Amino acid sequence: MLIESSNNSNVKRWMKLKQKKYRSQFNQFIVEGEHLVLEALKAKVVKEIIIREHSQLPDSIQPHECTVYQLKESLFIQLASTQAPQSVMAVCEMKQKPVTEMNRLLLLDRVQDPGNLGTLLRSAVAFGFDGVILGEGCVDVYNEKVIRSTQGAIFTLAIESHSLSDYIKRLMEQGIHVFGTSLYHGSPLSTIEEFPRMAFMLGNEGSGVQTELLELTHQNIFIEMSENIESLNVSIAGSIIMYHFRQ
Amino acid sequence: MLIESSNNSNVKRWMKLKQKKYRSQFNQFIVEGEHLVLEALKAKVVKEIIIREHSQLPDSIQPHECTVYQLKESLFIQLASTQAPQSVMAVCEMKQKPVTEMNRLLLLDRVQDPGNLGTLLRSAVAFGFDGVILGEGCVDVYNEKVIRSTQGAIFTLAIESHSLSDYIKRLMEQGIHVFGTSLYHGSPLSTIEEFPRMAFMLGNEGSGVQTELLELTHQNIFIEMSENIESLNVSIAGSIIMYHFRQ
Repeated sequence: MLIESSNNSNVKRWMKLKQKKYRSQFNQFIVEGEHLVLEALKAKVVKEIIIREHSQLPDSIQPHECTVYQLKESLFIQLASTQAPQSVMAVCEMKQKPVTEMNRLLLLDRVQDPGNLGTLLRSAVAFGFDGVILGEGCVDVYNEKVIRSTQGAIFTLAIESHSLSDYIKRLMEQGIHVFGTSLYHGSPLSTIEEFPRMAFMLGNEGSGVQTELLELTHQNIFIEMSENIESLNVSIAGSIIMYHFRQ
Repeated sequence: MLIESSNNSNVKRWMKLKQKKYRSQFNQFIVEGEHLVLEALKAKVVKEIIIREHSQLPDSIQPHECTVYQLKESLFIQLASTQAPQSVMAVCEMKQKPVTEMNRLLLLDRVQDPGNLGTLLRSAVAFGFDGVILGEGCVDVYNEKVIRSTQGAIFTLAIESHSLSDYIKRLMEQGIHVFGTSLYHGSPLSTIEEFPRMAFMLGNEGSGVQTELLELTHQNIFIEMSENIESLNVSIAGSIIMYHFRQ
């Protein structure tokens, strides 16, 4: 079915999904290109597929259980986030999971590099983490660079945005052990006791986790390392911790 | 002392250092900008400092035990690798260490992303590794992006280029235990016995370590992870292994 009008209610909703507040409101986001659409289909999160006018659905894409729309050239280009868009997009449902079912969480305080966030999400899936909480000041997870560097991890993880100070209290009320990371204070990773339910907080590339947040945790961790280096990359530090406490 | 001629023997040598073969021949390389020059001075590897004509040495830079040259504007710009160079460079000696003194090594097979190589070097220093061996097909370690992302690690590590198949045999003759990494074959990381002297081989971002090289090792390792993800980023995989067997 070819959609030609920008007044079409689907087109209106899709255009809104370019903005963060509507993505949260609708619990939906759009991914672009054959590779990501395939990953999203594999994860069973695709609601609608959008094809560019005059284009065919690639043979690799088998759109069971989702509607396929053909979109007028000018609208397709307007909807796309890239300058030279591929010919297919998918509207995806965000993965959701209640905190009561989460045993391993990652909390991110002002992580700003899209590559770091993408790599952390990929490692979170690899090591069986249930959810990732983005505090204020993190790069948008539906940023195109983040989505590309996650290699599909974005479809299988519950990812939410919250004020971390409030959320840490909520996790503690749920009986989850909350750990901060710090270069200077805390206990070495290899000495940390394992608990059934744990959350780990990582911080900004330049300045780490905010002191006020480190003061709210049960305990803080550092990763044992040589004095010859100032710090580890945040995606490295996070992945080492997640491997250590993998599920 | 202001150098104005491109026939000056120092200028000739510095220009040659823009090429890989001369860097290996002279065991020297050039870094640019105040931050890296400071890191190089801290690591005591600076041989000469080069300042741009009409510029002052930044106050932060105290050039004990190395010669300072002022270089004519046009030559300075020709020597620099960036379009808009900062006003200071340093000629550095490459760190060297005989293999008989190495207890932890990283071997890299066709790692091509400058950010990944830089991050691996930074983690190698953090976890007390002695040397990193670059096989054929790796990105040049003196690539500007690599140097920036190492955050100084490049000055304290012995980094060499070798044919990996020959080098693995040499390590084995030295009594070093050589491990490959593979997604599909091998033993889980957490079950690997620790030896006094170990080398770990990581592979290309897309295709991993070449099969022919994996067949030469004592043992191959995989990192335990969920089936929901295809692979880990090579800098993540390497850093997890290096943390696990840190010195």
